[in-house]
Amino acid sequence: MNRRRAADVATLVECARAGDARSVARLISLVEDASPLLREVAAALTPHTGRARVLGITGPPGVGKSTTTTALVRAFRSEGRRVGVLAVDPSSPFSGGALLGDRVRMSDHAGDPGVYIRSMAARGHLGGLAWSTPQALRVLDASGCDVVLIETVGVGQSELEVASLADTTLVLLAPGMGDGVQAAKAGILEVADVLVVNKADRDGAGRTVRELRAMLPHGSRPDAWQPPVLTTVAVRTSDNGVPELCDRIEEHAAWLARSGEGARRRVRRAEREVEAIALAVLRARLGDVRGSAALRPLAARVAAGETDPYRAADELVAQL
Amino acid sequence: MNRRRAADVATLVECARAGDARSVARLISLVEDASPLLREVAAALTPHTGRARVLGITGPPGVGKSTTTTALVRAFRSEGRRVGVLAVDPSSPFSGGALLGDRVRMSDHAGDPGVYIRSMAARGHLGGLAWSTPQALRVLDASGCDVVLIETVGVGQSELEVASLADTTLVLLAPGMGDGVQAAKAGILEVADVLVVNKADRDGAGRTVRELRAMLPHGSRPDAWQPPVLTTVAVRTSDNGVPELCDRIEEHAAWLARSGEGARRRVRRAEREVEAIALAVLRARLGDVRGSAALRPLAARVAAGETDPYRAADELVAQL
Repeated sequence: MNRRRAADVATLVECARAGDARSVARLISLVEDASPLLREVAAALTPHTGRARVLGITGPPGVGKSTTTTALVRAFRSEGRRVGVLAVDPSSPFSGGALLGDRVRMSDHAGDPGVYIRSMAARGHLGGLAWSTPQALRVLDASGCDVVLIETVGVGQSELEVASLADTTLVLLAPGMGDGVQAAKAGILEVADVLVVNKADRDGAGRTVRELRAMLPHGSRPDAWQPPVLTTVAVRTSDNGVPELCDRIEEHAAWLARSGEGARRRVRRAEREVEAIALAVLRARLGDVRGSAALRPLAARVAAGETDPYRAADELVAQL
Repeated sequence: MNRRRAADVATLVECARAGDARSVARLISLVEDASPLLREVAAALTPHTGRARVLGITGPPGVGKSTTTTALVRAFRSEGRRVGVLAVDPSSPFSGGALLGDRVRMSDHAGDPGVYIRSMAARGHLGGLAWSTPQALRVLDASGCDVVLIETVGVGQSELEVASLADTTLVLLAPGMGDGVQAAKAGILEVADVLVVNKADRDGAGRTVRELRAMLPHGSRPDAWQPPVLTTVAVRTSDNGVPELCDRIEEHAAWLARSGEGARRRVRRAEREVEAIALAVLRARLGDVRGSAALRPLAARVAAGETDPYRAADELVAQL
């Protein structure tokens, strides 16, 4: 049975690597739902991972993240690169709205076998998105994507965790929303490698650019990366500023390789991933304890005031 | 040093039990912030816990939870009972707004030494509110409160966890908001022991009551509790329906004792508390591993594609 399952997984991985979108989808579902095959899938993917460049795209709602993602996909496709897109909406417990919206806007690429698009929902499994997104990324990487774009709504902690998966993080803002200040408050300026003021045809774009430049920390070391602030007008019919954005992304990639920061980021990313999985493993062991002979009598003693919950927890942990 | 700290904690607990509000506040801060004294505090409180009746009050924003809480505090105080109130707002990372709002509305009881009011903020410590609320409850219980009201905004998972602390859970709704359906979707009907349609002087109250009655599961067992649906108009000057609400709460308390469900709920509550603390203990051990000699080389091997993150996590867990 185990051998047959392993063979099935190996076949799925081979088909995914050959460009079969359904196999990619199947693999992502397996890792996302923490299927019993999870470990076999991870083991089968591992030899093929580590090649994809990961681009995070974040920012407040309404700044044009999906349009910019589409423009970048178009740019990467024009160079013949295979592209994966993970559209993440941590604020929604369901994927409905975001999924539909993305699909509609992404329909330019619907028939293109070189583009794989997936909406990630915050299902609350294990560590939620912080768990499932790196797993999905691993599938796309092993499946031969040259670039994976992770698009998230720039709100909240789990979203910053998701952004931390990226080699290069783009932070998108729009003019006249007091966005600079809000972005600084939300901590998203700190994660920005490239800042983009999108919808730059609107009033106040120049001012937003100046505000952001003033707010950014200026690195004193000559080899430090200084996040550029660009303007774009990413719409479906024209992509003003997008070629320049692609140039900055390439420059950042070159800096990552030159400075050694790219390798450091990937080790940090793996650290977080291993830690998250270790915590899930421990939680699962606790879950096995739930309802078992161990927890109930301890809890009964706590409920009766005979012991305190900390001592009971120590006893429980000692039994793992 | 340890003996002196233990003596300080014992003194604090004695003062809190004697009705000193500042000592109660100090103890809650100690447990909420996971102070190093946490375990000593829990041990000192334990012999005095298990007496308070816990009343959960939840529902969507704007249905009048704080006003109803105030009316219930007034009713309990008129019977000479000591009352604690924990006002919980899981949606806010800060306590600011909720704190001020509650304080203002609760000002009827500001000078009453028989009432202790505390706003709980979702600080993100350890397990957040699911962690800090039972600890604060433990302090109020040991401090001699006969009743503790936990008021939460009826949104989200952590809030349902908080409601699960209660012996009796009141779910408040208001007419004409399509609340019945929304409540059913959010799963709050399932946790309701008593349903209250507040602001019942508004149009549509009768219809909301009928909707709710139709939606409620009807227990087939003769000893099952059938959640009543009441109407109230809780305002500062009159409390229409509140005496009836108090009667239903008493009936539910009698049923809890008669059926054995009260004892079962308290054991389940202790189970969740012990589990949450055990998970925090394990997470802290993982945190000790972070940055240590163990994690970095494992992560480097994952980043290099030499092993998969699941195997690395297993190795990490084995080292705990």
